[in-house]
Amino acid sequence: MRYQSPARAISLVGFMGTGKTTNGQRLAKQLGLQCVDTDDTVQRLAGKTIPEIFATDGEEAFRDLETRALSMALSGPRSVVGTGGGVVLRASNMEMMKSAGPVICLEARPETILARIPARNDRPLLQCADPAGRITQMLAERREAYAQADYTVQADYRDRSVVLGQMMRLLENDPRTTLMVDRRTRVHVKASNGEYRIHVEAGAFDRLARLCPPTAAGNPCVVVSSEAVAALYGEKVLGQLTCGGWRAHLVTVPNGEGAKTLQNASMLYDRFAEMGLDSGATVFALGGGVVGDLAGFAAATYRRGVRFAQLPTSLLAQVDASSGGKVAVNHPKGKNLIGTFYQPAGVVIDTASLQTLPERELRSGLAEVIKHAAIADAGMFAFLERELEAFCALDDIAVRYVLARNCQIKAGVVERDPYDRGARACLNYGHTVGHALERTSGDWELKHGEAVAIGMVAEARFALELGLCDEETVSRQEALIKRAGLPTHAEGVDIQQAREALRVDKKIASGRLRMPLVPRIGTVQILRDADIEALQGVLATVIGSGTA
Amino acid sequence: MRYQSPARAISLVGFMGTGKTTNGQRLAKQLGLQCVDTDDTVQRLAGKTIPEIFATDGEEAFRDLETRALSMALSGPRSVVGTGGGVVLRASNMEMMKSAGPVICLEARPETILARIPARNDRPLLQCADPAGRITQMLAERREAYAQADYTVQADYRDRSVVLGQMMRLLENDPRTTLMVDRRTRVHVKASNGEYRIHVEAGAFDRLARLCPPTAAGNPCVVVSSEAVAALYGEKVLGQLTCGGWRAHLVTVPNGEGAKTLQNASMLYDRFAEMGLDSGATVFALGGGVVGDLAGFAAATYRRGVRFAQLPTSLLAQVDASSGGKVAVNHPKGKNLIGTFYQPAGVVIDTASLQTLPERELRSGLAEVIKHAAIADAGMFAFLERELEAFCALDDIAVRYVLARNCQIKAGVVERDPYDRGARACLNYGHTVGHALERTSGDWELKHGEAVAIGMVAEARFALELGLCDEETVSRQEALIKRAGLPTHAEGVDIQQAREALRVDKKIASGRLRMPLVPRIGTVQILRDADIEALQGVLATVIGSGTA
Repeated sequence: MRYQSPARAISLVGFMGTGKTTNGQRLAKQLGLQCVDTDDTVQRLAGKTIPEIFATDGEEAFRDLETRALSMALSGPRSVVGTGGGVVLRASNMEMMKSAGPVICLEARPETILARIPARNDRPLLQCADPAGRITQMLAERREAYAQADYTVQADYRDRSVVLGQMMRLLENDPRTTLMVDRRTRVHVKASNGEYRIHVEAGAFDRLARLCPPTAAGNPCVVVSSEAVAALYGEKVLGQLTCGGWRAHLVTVPNGEGAKTLQNASMLYDRFAEMGLDSGATVFALGGGVVGDLAGFAAATYRRGVRFAQLPTSLLAQVDASSGGKVAVNHPKGKNLIGTFYQPAGVVIDTASLQTLPERELRSGLAEVIKHAAIADAGMFAFLERELEAFCALDDIAVRYVLARNCQIKAGVVERDPYDRGARACLNYGHTVGHALERTSGDWELKHGEAVAIGMVAEARFALELGLCDEETVSRQEALIKRAGLPTHAEGVDIQQAREALRVDKKIASGRLRMPLVPRIGTVQILRDADIEALQGVLATVIGSGTA
Repeated sequence: MRYQSPARAISLVGFMGTGKTTNGQRLAKQLGLQCVDTDDTVQRLAGKTIPEIFATDGEEAFRDLETRALSMALSGPRSVVGTGGGVVLRASNMEMMKSAGPVICLEARPETILARIPARNDRPLLQCADPAGRITQMLAERREAYAQADYTVQADYRDRSVVLGQMMRLLENDPRTTLMVDRRTRVHVKASNGEYRIHVEAGAFDRLARLCPPTAAGNPCVVVSSEAVAALYGEKVLGQLTCGGWRAHLVTVPNGEGAKTLQNASMLYDRFAEMGLDSGATVFALGGGVVGDLAGFAAATYRRGVRFAQLPTSLLAQVDASSGGKVAVNHPKGKNLIGTFYQPAGVVIDTASLQTLPERELRSGLAEVIKHAAIADAGMFAFLERELEAFCALDDIAVRYVLARNCQIKAGVVERDPYDRGARACLNYGHTVGHALERTSGDWELKHGEAVAIGMVAEARFALELGLCDEETVSRQEALIKRAGLPTHAEGVDIQQAREALRVDKKIASGRLRMPLVPRIGTVQILRDADIEALQGVLATVIGSGTA
């Protein structure tokens, strides 16, 4: 199943007295969302009660205020929106609600409605001699409008939990709301040697005892982590694993890319051997990409491969490294020069770990997220345009959606090309220019994601220059990258060095540069013989302090 | 296709004048076999000509001599046996010939036969007034006997090459003779990631330019070899690869098991990187198991795996390591502790390399050959009993058969269990006791094959003690191991240490020892819960200077 971008709002419509307000509040509480009632907003906007608005300004003025209140609710934070009974009278209101998410119509028999309206009612439209007749008449008039809702739920029941249960079941099966209904999101990945699961949940590390049980009590495992991450989560993870029945050890490696050496892999072998780990042991990699690559390489090669589970704590590792099946250490002559392909037995992502991730790391990881969206999912791209701020504020639903969908995209590409022989090339979008910038900037001046962000800008412009895409495709990428707090040009990079770095790029097979480009947001195309000089020209527009 | 043990003799029968002698000589020359003519042997045995034998001793005496000559020819070196026209008159002769290999009957029309018999003929049976009538009569009498042959070939043609061509085509398709007809034997191995070929040929290294061409001229490759093997074959292999269009480098590592270290793997990475090898490079492992394991590990992990080809030069590497898909280096805490599974792209075995293999290494390799025969192929076991001396003398056909069949057996097991999770356990026959002996003898006192040989003797006796096999199954294994020049008991091993080593064997999962046993030559059975004390008892019978 493909995760769809979560709805902004679940709207409840229905006749007065069907319980929109109460049921809306209960539903919002269940989903952990806020609940907005358009009638409340209308009264706040007008500074008077609804009967007063009807009395002094007339129904049309009320309907205008109602539309404004609805629009505010639908574009605000993710919520359950309760509406007035007459909101459906304007077709444009229904359209607005449906484009923001599922619309549920609560339906009740006239008798139920009549019984629920207090004797001294303040509903302007029922101020008449025969409320029962009026209800029946109005229900008939609005039947067609209510029928436009995505779902209809019977609300006659005295027991309100029946109504709530019905709504939850519908939402569970609606791809726009599954992520809201479930607190835990799972991605199933088909790897060359079987299937594994990526589990995404806020607080997942607090439930590791249950999420990752040993096959038998006393099974040995070792958690490999960096010093920094171990300080934050080492105790919790080790405690959970021990509590789950593992005989768990912790080994830390220094922080940073410098730890990805064969010497550290050798140190891990020594430690594994000292602990007497046999082929039944499991290695947990707790940390970012460096720890995942190093611990994964050691796991892949210790006793010809022991079980390996990833507990990635950086956004980059969560959306990219953890589902690539690549493990490696660096060599003085090249990054990841020593490595292999090794699939994890499982990945557990605790989204809460993003709260301790340095801001710059989070934004750097966003570059790969934007890349995945640009090459593979226009829907996610639009979601990011809409909800980037919610994601950066670590809104649970936005984060789970972005992580799950990114893992799906990455794993899907890897599944088609497990050994990196062709299809994976599309993942290099932004990386041709990005790598050239990385190689010419100092080690710490430009993070990988930042280089890729600038690379995407340059490569989008290159595609435009070749007539492969339109201006909007470029400007949307550039705008999103900027909003993500990522650079769109590299300062302090020597243009000549960068041009040269581009020329000797390893992806140039026998003089021909193959590079992926984005002809339309959400699609990718491999350009088989890119003109290096033309690309070098575009490179100049993203270097230095000016923009193109 | 499964390679069958090669025939000892190809017998030619047929009426006089059908060209058995000439065609036999041509066939023998073509197949590189010797040619034996039973009439010649008979005359040598009797010390007189055939007409003289018929004249003085009678036909029956001649037939007795002929049977003796036939028996000698069939049990001698592999050959084409030409026979007298009347050899088929004794049914037992035909049976003898057929059990030694295919029997071809040459058939010709009476006119052809008559025309070919010289005017002054010395054939006793044609000393009559009407030879033509006699021929027709004798052909009719012998028709049924000749029909017992496996194949019948028309020999009327003037052009003898037609007859030779017919015989070759028949033999090509006869599993008992395919190995004789082809000088090159190929085993196709299905591996988890595709198929590869094991090519077996005397002088294969002299043809590497053709056998292993690069996909494009100038492709880089590196030959990894031990100092000793490089001195013997390095120049030849490098020259051939260069001649074939490779840009070839040679890297040597020290001789012996001590070279299988992570440090040497690291040295290989350094050298590969210095040479600028990219992911399109190929690594050739030229040498024994140590070089194959070390170079294979480096190839598997350099740039996440480059192409890897094996050029194994030791019998052990040829029959065992080259088709296992296992690569590794040692760690102070354990042999092969650091490794992975990696299939070669191809294996080329030059059987001539066995000529430079130290005698003790050859015999040590034979232990794994005998193990494969014992657990999987009664036919090969019988072949070894029959032709062990021919194999040890490096008879080309015997060697190609043994190598090809061993690779088939090994690869078949590996195919069912690529990641060593179950079925491969059968390959551990002889290794439970063998490993215990290896661990308690000094590093150089007992070679792996020698330990396995003693292990097989002990484990065969263990199976007998458990009533799983009969005495003959034990004695045949023991006899063959002795004839192979392998020890059947370990001198200078401390019995207490060996008993202890057996107890802590890593194959004992939670106190239960799983071990493969041979209930009948050519079959294997996993004993799931072996009684360690009983096994320790048997162990005592193979330790010290005495036998059981």
